[in-house]
Amino acid sequence: MAVSALVVTVGVALGADEHDVAALTHVLTEAGLTVAGRFAVDDDETALEHALAMEAAVIVVVAGSGSSSGDVVRRTLARVAGTRLVLNDRMLEALTERYRRRDRPLPRRAERLALVPQGAVLWLSPDSDPAFLLETPGRVIAVLPRGADLAAVAREHLVPWLAARTAPGETVLTRTLRTAGVSIADVEERLADRTARPDGGDATITVLPAGSGDFEVWVRIVARGPAAAETLARVERDVAGVLGEDCYGRDGETLERVVGRLLLDRGLTLSVAESCTSGLLGHRLTDIAGSSAYFERGVLVYSNQAKQDLLGVPEAILRAHGAVSAPCAEAMARGICARSGNPVGLAITGIAGPDGGTPTKPVGTVFIGVAVSGDVETRRFQFAGDRSSVKWQSTQMALDLLRRRLLREAPSRDAGR
Amino acid sequence: MAVSALVVTVGVALGADEHDVAALTHVLTEAGLTVAGRFAVDDDETALEHALAMEAAVIVVVAGSGSSSGDVVRRTLARVAGTRLVLNDRMLEALTERYRRRDRPLPRRAERLALVPQGAVLWLSPDSDPAFLLETPGRVIAVLPRGADLAAVAREHLVPWLAARTAPGETVLTRTLRTAGVSIADVEERLADRTARPDGGDATITVLPAGSGDFEVWVRIVARGPAAAETLARVERDVAGVLGEDCYGRDGETLERVVGRLLLDRGLTLSVAESCTSGLLGHRLTDIAGSSAYFERGVLVYSNQAKQDLLGVPEAILRAHGAVSAPCAEAMARGICARSGNPVGLAITGIAGPDGGTPTKPVGTVFIGVAVSGDVETRRFQFAGDRSSVKWQSTQMALDLLRRRLLREAPSRDAGR
Repeated sequence: MAVSALVVTVGVALGADEHDVAALTHVLTEAGLTVAGRFAVDDDETALEHALAMEAAVIVVVAGSGSSSGDVVRRTLARVAGTRLVLNDRMLEALTERYRRRDRPLPRRAERLALVPQGAVLWLSPDSDPAFLLETPGRVIAVLPRGADLAAVAREHLVPWLAARTAPGETVLTRTLRTAGVSIADVEERLADRTARPDGGDATITVLPAGSGDFEVWVRIVARGPAAAETLARVERDVAGVLGEDCYGRDGETLERVVGRLLLDRGLTLSVAESCTSGLLGHRLTDIAGSSAYFERGVLVYSNQAKQDLLGVPEAILRAHGAVSAPCAEAMARGICARSGNPVGLAITGIAGPDGGTPTKPVGTVFIGVAVSGDVETRRFQFAGDRSSVKWQSTQMALDLLRRRLLREAPSRDAGR
Repeated sequence: MAVSALVVTVGVALGADEHDVAALTHVLTEAGLTVAGRFAVDDDETALEHALAMEAAVIVVVAGSGSSSGDVVRRTLARVAGTRLVLNDRMLEALTERYRRRDRPLPRRAERLALVPQGAVLWLSPDSDPAFLLETPGRVIAVLPRGADLAAVAREHLVPWLAARTAPGETVLTRTLRTAGVSIADVEERLADRTARPDGGDATITVLPAGSGDFEVWVRIVARGPAAAETLARVERDVAGVLGEDCYGRDGETLERVVGRLLLDRGLTLSVAESCTSGLLGHRLTDIAGSSAYFERGVLVYSNQAKQDLLGVPEAILRAHGAVSAPCAEAMARGICARSGNPVGLAITGIAGPDGGTPTKPVGTVFIGVAVSGDVETRRFQFAGDRSSVKWQSTQMALDLLRRRLLREAPSRDAGR
């Protein structure tokens, strides 16, 4: 399937649809579809109608069926397809059962939710919110539920439906190589010849920023044609060779997942000491299922008193160098290892802003300490951007420093997986 | 200005444009524009051309000027506007100066970056990346830089340019009321009469989910016409009355900001003890500038040993009830207050999944403890969704429980602001 798809979310607050869109894009891409764009509209029939007029073989509309967005979607779809809305008894039954199972009262106007455009294919299951699909001339429009069920419904119903109707023809394969600690300008320069002259027309290489600023840069490779698999493998080897150690992972691998795997492979456990990031580092590390195998504890030492109480940072260091200093970062990294008994310690102290900057230590000044089995390195960074951005970049660089440091440690022979 | 605008990001990885889009939407909405939709496309000229064909008076394109996205934007714009790309010396000069100031090497193909469509209005400043605007029949297309400069450039150049060209006519005002701890079905039922029959046609009320599941629900009020200000004030009073204490804030106010303000007003300081969320609560609380006035420290107690070492949770509780239990949540909340000396303590312990669930405590079981001046409440929750979602909902409910608890405390007479 080399089908181009478009994802449209309806009536979702800005930023709240990211999880849904990411999960859906993952399923569609896995199935060989190209997600050409995503569009977010308010509960607005005109805006949705414009989105549905975009050129794409498949349009996936994601809307909360219980909210007013559902009404907008149903009405707009019926108009676009030139059909009527009809009350579907099977849909009503499925909805009633869903509400019953989840121990929630059926909304007053439940019949409204069971209105579907005539001719729609219904996907009903007691385990997920209902979904349906409508074929219009030249395209397919699927309406899927938001939230936890989205990926499952896409995988179980939409993908097989599309696969059954698409001629097994051109293959499109994509690979994303993820880098940390290098600027986009640097990656572009190193790959300039390759991005300018794609591989025989069968592969394209794109460099893209994966965050404001330069703190993560991705290289996307798309290969087409009957030999797509070989082309992709060859181009990936070539690009990975150029990127070297700067490439930390591929496709869905995050920096925190790669760091976790390196710790597991080396049989090492980690604890963290965070000042200016105050939890973001621990949060990222424990977003990985199974992280309790290597993440043991952490302390958020926002105040100087907390740095002394919980890490034993000497008052002399705080007095002579301040809390935002290399000696403090080192004492924090050593302190968390000593107090927790874990061999690896990661410490962050800095000024996230907007206040607290000085001429010698402006906002964005961050010191990171990495301790591995008693050996401590510290690094000073000067990050641009606002408070959130400085916090994110701090954790990004902390994870990347630890990653590069762990690559120099030998894997353990008996590391548990 | 009642102008409809569309935001298009080009060549940005999924999720990485949220910050840019939110910042830009804020500036445009403040200036009275209605952001009708946002669109994200890859580095793909066809996809961008489709996005530019959408109906909107103003289209704002956000792309990294240093990346290949810039090429796609420039070429597509020139084609859409029917003009040529020309090398602009002032643009080249500005770019050279920008790179020099930021101590970065000028890219090899810098001239490429200084190509702009003929007839474009240039916005050059030594303080920000260059931007430009192109007038095509019936619409205005602005190309603004990504990242830290985006909001500033929009505010300084785009908004005044639009204001100067728009007749002062219809006014559109919006207000968002944010709720926590109530389901979308509940809010919809309570507001059903009002959403069904908008206020004389001059105001619309929409209920929208601000996250997968029901953990935050927003009510958006849009008022139009010459009396928009009075209409908005009247409808807002009415809706706020219906929502009562469930409404925690409006527009850009987050739950963590409101909790911070309540702590400040009451002269109270807070520390946190996190098990399954392991940093997310501390991270959210310290995302607020000035949070050091009330947030003092936290501990991430992932292991049982850490719960004993850092909080003094009795081994007997862990043995009899387990770490995921009301007695453990209570001991954690009491422990963090006792060890830190802060009057307010917030504790979270639970099973984020995917592993670790049992028949009596399935994945998503979370206990929250709230301690205020020695008085401790605990609550049990059963959250749906994956690991990230359970973590988010846990912090959401912890913050909301603390908010409702603090509303019962009298504000301090001499609380510092």
